[in-house]
Amino acid sequence: MHILVTNDDGVHAPGLLALVQVMRQCGRVSIVAPDRNWSGRGHVKTLERPLRVHEVQLADGTPAYASDGAPSDCVALAVMGFLREPVDLVVSGINPMANLGHDVTYSGTVTAVMESIIWHIPGIAFSLDAGKHGHETVDYSAAARVARLITRMTLQRGLPKGVFLNVNIPYLPAEMLQGIQLTRQGLRVYRDRLDERQDPRGRAYYWIGGDSPTGVPEDGTDVGAMASGHVSVTPLQMDLTAYHVMPGLQEWGWSQLEVIPRPKALQGLAEIVSQER
Amino acid sequence: MHILVTNDDGVHAPGLLALVQVMRQCGRVSIVAPDRNWSGRGHVKTLERPLRVHEVQLADGTPAYASDGAPSDCVALAVMGFLREPVDLVVSGINPMANLGHDVTYSGTVTAVMESIIWHIPGIAFSLDAGKHGHETVDYSAAARVARLITRMTLQRGLPKGVFLNVNIPYLPAEMLQGIQLTRQGLRVYRDRLDERQDPRGRAYYWIGGDSPTGVPEDGTDVGAMASGHVSVTPLQMDLTAYHVMPGLQEWGWSQLEVIPRPKALQGLAEIVSQER
Repeated sequence: MHILVTNDDGVHAPGLLALVQVMRQCGRVSIVAPDRNWSGRGHVKTLERPLRVHEVQLADGTPAYASDGAPSDCVALAVMGFLREPVDLVVSGINPMANLGHDVTYSGTVTAVMESIIWHIPGIAFSLDAGKHGHETVDYSAAARVARLITRMTLQRGLPKGVFLNVNIPYLPAEMLQGIQLTRQGLRVYRDRLDERQDPRGRAYYWIGGDSPTGVPEDGTDVGAMASGHVSVTPLQMDLTAYHVMPGLQEWGWSQLEVIPRPKALQGLAEIVSQER
Repeated sequence: MHILVTNDDGVHAPGLLALVQVMRQCGRVSIVAPDRNWSGRGHVKTLERPLRVHEVQLADGTPAYASDGAPSDCVALAVMGFLREPVDLVVSGINPMANLGHDVTYSGTVTAVMESIIWHIPGIAFSLDAGKHGHETVDYSAAARVARLITRMTLQRGLPKGVFLNVNIPYLPAEMLQGIQLTRQGLRVYRDRLDERQDPRGRAYYWIGGDSPTGVPEDGTDVGAMASGHVSVTPLQMDLTAYHVMPGLQEWGWSQLEVIPRPKALQGLAEIVSQER
């Protein structure tokens, strides 16, 4: 098994090292990760500039590659041939902040794994709900053991096609974890506030400020699992279609235009468009 | 109705101007858009630096705000209070390239509208499938009329909570459009290839190259609608949970740990974790 490890905090983040050390017990490990922090910067495909890659060493001497692209670029680079051998699994993390609910489209940790799914490679995102603890002082040992356990299960069982796992781990000693829950994506509650300031030249600038997000700790959700001390395993996929509203939206009458035979359909839309003028 | 217009090609893109001109017929319009191109750079929340906003004029003299943030930052700024009045609808576009299938998490056009949904404001992303035509020479007139029609319907009917529309419009004269289809998200086929080059100093750099994406033109999907000359209206939401695989994944045995009473659960997980050492 050839496992690609990446993250969004940068190649020298202690959470990546913790993940690499346990992944080495699950398979052969390659590392391609950003050379800087990419948190909260979403699913990226860098097309307008070339990417650089340079060799680095992790704190334990492990050789790794650092790229000036986003986490998703690192995955794309690796699987498009920068790594000479095929990748069997992509793991991302361990992020020191949880990625729950609506966080998933913002998160570099999660969008790296979205990229792996687009390349038809299974993936797992690992995040630790260490909240206000400083990045450098976080203890990743329990989370790393959980990551190893879930990775082994995933390699053994195989993920369904097009599905990846978003794993969040409460910040507790291993013996205090309440178990593992298969969850659905819950609801984040963002508390961002606009913080307007003036620079020394009297011109305005704006911080996205406010308090850290909370969430609705509903049973069966990722947010709920964190609240009850459970490891959360959420299977995610890339189809965002709101199937449940399609019958209601059909009543808006698009389908009328859709089913009219071609000459009439042409007329139909042209008429509406000209009425709208 | 107060309509916020944004895009991912930058405030001076002709597709934004075309959208603004028809939105003015649907309500009062404010414009907050990026000061540069943000294509393919995903759902962003800029927290590590402040954002600047400056006043600009569109080519027709319309006043607008340009920010150095991402499209999603522009929406966040606007609705967090930079615009003094509440926003009733966010529209994004008109993008000169289609946003189909897996494009939606990369797309600045679409992720701007994701941001509006997170702020509980309905939104619509508009993209024109103009493909290889240059940005500057694209004719947005038919697409703008379609955008007006769909926006009017949306304002009249109201979107279900948490749902936004991803609209793609074939690049055809209005009278050649075959109608409007309510669709599901289809499958994109990316054809990216790694293009390794050497700089004048002999160091490697990497372009994400290859051909433009195609897709699986299945009936009922956004990709299929483009292939048959139909306007595609896809209702999207932010829950990526792969509900269909949850019964299968439950059999992996997470639930066993989940249902064990607390002292035993502790022991259960601790045992597995220590076996894994």
